[in-house]
Amino acid sequence: MSSKRSPRRQFLKNGAALASFAAGAISSSSGKLFAADVPSADLHAYGQRSRFENDVRIGSLALWPIVPGARRDYGFRSPLQDSMGIITPASLHFIISHGHEPPDIDSRDHQLMIHGMVDRPLIFTLDEIKRLPSVSRLHFLECHGNSAAAGITGEPRKLTSATVQDTHGLTSCSVWTGVPLTLLLGQVGVQKGASWIVAEGSETGRHTKSIPLEKAMDDCLLAYGQNGEALRPEQGYPLRLLVPGWQGINNVKWLRRIYVVDQPYMAMMESTKYPSPRLDGKSRWFESEMGPKSVITRPSGGQQLGSRGFYEITGLAWSGGGAVRRVEVSVDGGRTWKDAQLQQPIVPKAHTRFGLSWTWNGEEAMLQSRCTDDQGHVQPTLAELSKYWGVDADYFRLPPTTADMGNFNSIQPWKVSRDGSVSNALL
Amino acid sequence: MSSKRSPRRQFLKNGAALASFAAGAISSSSGKLFAADVPSADLHAYGQRSRFENDVRIGSLALWPIVPGARRDYGFRSPLQDSMGIITPASLHFIISHGHEPPDIDSRDHQLMIHGMVDRPLIFTLDEIKRLPSVSRLHFLECHGNSAAAGITGEPRKLTSATVQDTHGLTSCSVWTGVPLTLLLGQVGVQKGASWIVAEGSETGRHTKSIPLEKAMDDCLLAYGQNGEALRPEQGYPLRLLVPGWQGINNVKWLRRIYVVDQPYMAMMESTKYPSPRLDGKSRWFESEMGPKSVITRPSGGQQLGSRGFYEITGLAWSGGGAVRRVEVSVDGGRTWKDAQLQQPIVPKAHTRFGLSWTWNGEEAMLQSRCTDDQGHVQPTLAELSKYWGVDADYFRLPPTTADMGNFNSIQPWKVSRDGSVSNALL
Repeated sequence: MSSKRSPRRQFLKNGAALASFAAGAISSSSGKLFAADVPSADLHAYGQRSRFENDVRIGSLALWPIVPGARRDYGFRSPLQDSMGIITPASLHFIISHGHEPPDIDSRDHQLMIHGMVDRPLIFTLDEIKRLPSVSRLHFLECHGNSAAAGITGEPRKLTSATVQDTHGLTSCSVWTGVPLTLLLGQVGVQKGASWIVAEGSETGRHTKSIPLEKAMDDCLLAYGQNGEALRPEQGYPLRLLVPGWQGINNVKWLRRIYVVDQPYMAMMESTKYPSPRLDGKSRWFESEMGPKSVITRPSGGQQLGSRGFYEITGLAWSGGGAVRRVEVSVDGGRTWKDAQLQQPIVPKAHTRFGLSWTWNGEEAMLQSRCTDDQGHVQPTLAELSKYWGVDADYFRLPPTTADMGNFNSIQPWKVSRDGSVSNALL
Repeated sequence: MSSKRSPRRQFLKNGAALASFAAGAISSSSGKLFAADVPSADLHAYGQRSRFENDVRIGSLALWPIVPGARRDYGFRSPLQDSMGIITPASLHFIISHGHEPPDIDSRDHQLMIHGMVDRPLIFTLDEIKRLPSVSRLHFLECHGNSAAAGITGEPRKLTSATVQDTHGLTSCSVWTGVPLTLLLGQVGVQKGASWIVAEGSETGRHTKSIPLEKAMDDCLLAYGQNGEALRPEQGYPLRLLVPGWQGINNVKWLRRIYVVDQPYMAMMESTKYPSPRLDGKSRWFESEMGPKSVITRPSGGQQLGSRGFYEITGLAWSGGGAVRRVEVSVDGGRTWKDAQLQQPIVPKAHTRFGLSWTWNGEEAMLQSRCTDDQGHVQPTLAELSKYWGVDADYFRLPPTTADMGNFNSIQPWKVSRDGSVSNALL
């Protein structure tokens, strides 16, 4: 896979282009170049980070027992504790895979077919899609299992030692560049009676997801760019669907087919894993929009305050329903709250950075944040969330074999001890 | 240097942390893990791009003869022809160096001293700076020699075959995270009578730049983050000065010292290279703000239109004086103009993406764009620029030994030939 390539190999592939440019430069500067004691071109062709920066995605592997022997899922979580601003570098964007490595697609060969209940079924090459007017939009993605007790990487929420990467690392935010899905649906001509689309990926497992046509015609994007360059393989290179504000599973990667239909298709990931079971044995199906949520990223679990004095409490807030309108921060376990400052830009269905100045007096403190979105929805406490769903807090502690709780947007408390250590307090 | 490390080595450095997390995950999923047929963790620790994506910075080396035998400069240009949206990936951000490779700094050892005409000279560690309230701001950087005839990489503007990377690749745009400089100047207490700061880098050559105190107190930033992660070494890791809208040379990298003074210091880069010589033998000194500028990035030099029909003409516009208010596009060499659509966000002193739908009829066309900023300043043609400075167009063709024209913001025409090839028409 591409991840294995060294920068050196990458450079060699571009050797011809570089060589021809260098030759031109030499001729235009009259041979006044020094060949020695100058940096070699490959050092700067495609830069790397400092060797002193060590943040990595962390993940683990889990077998989902629902389809015996067939599925090996993995999740890699983004290091939110060191996040800055609201953009996640592509190299650190979270990954969820239901058992398949990214396909090794040459973008020149990739095609998207749109068919079904349409007047003119069409196949688009990526070049044809790129000729259309492009848009760039800032949006978060979040796995519906993020922060859940029974997440893909086990149950980090239940560990005192959990970091914010463990508890909330299955969300990231990027600038996505592509073409509005409505534009292509307009070209094929959606027929009367159509009410859903079914999107299908190119990977071995052909992940398939049903999405209401109303959403598809609203703000969905066919994205080929992320943060100013082509999508990364793990994010769906060369083309993915973006379904802003909805569960990550909708955002089909390596997108190759959109089938316009008049009902949901009950594909594997919408019938076996993603409905949230209830205690009465039934499930909530086709949950989609992610609720208002926030988390303090600094100070957060596993970090250590060095001394008493000034700190900025900072974190991320987001909502699948719209823009973040307000973030409150409490340093006393929720007894009192202060409005945090929201940093610009505040974009609907995107991460929003908040900050609050705080002087630590050396005593124990309980830090937490609460998000309110522009729909007026407020992030709940764990107790409120439990009450809302008519089950007690233990509901969320059932093992993954019996309950795959999704859309878990509880307030996250971090405990600062007198020795300055910070630990997970949502137990 | 860091650029030489393989992802594998990087992973090994983090082996301990990953191993301990994986162990936790295993214990919480009751040993139900498959060790075989699953991705190895290092593939996903810090992702790489697809092996089918080959954009690289290109550059060349030049000897500046002003200081005999001493300076070996190099510039690496960003591949604007494939840019998407307005964010430049850190790996592809342009680089200018006046003869020195990035110093290999461990951020834990780095310090910033602020002294001179201040009440309380102070030394800040990077950790102390990071404890302060942070801001994230979108800003372009541009080398003052970008697009000039006498650029660091020779004279690409004069080549028919020049690409937009050759002609305009010395500008990039990032989200910079850091602390407003005013905050630290407030802590040290600037004394009455002070009117300039002198900023100094940590590299071998100790690049030094005088900046008016008024600008320093306005919107300058001490940046430690770029696009959501730590600065890259080539961009000043771990700390750089950001002087929004001003010539790139002001944005001192690897920043270690700020000296508050009452006059400019006539440092090497402000006395020997950056004043723009005039034909009468005098020079313009301390030019700073970059003028309104734009360029079409697609279609652009070296590209090939595949067939007649629909294309989006798209590009970037920016101004050191403020926000882009309007971009007009002409497809007939400037006889008629149409307003392009500006994409959100439109941020002062940042790149702004514009687009205009165009149907190519197969005939020769001359594409160009013109930026107007919110100060009402309009990007000039080459002829207007020449007239403004009281010299003819040949002025800009003098070799680098005699004229180092900076702030060259002429309109850039691209010629589309009947065979669909696109070439540089600013000759």
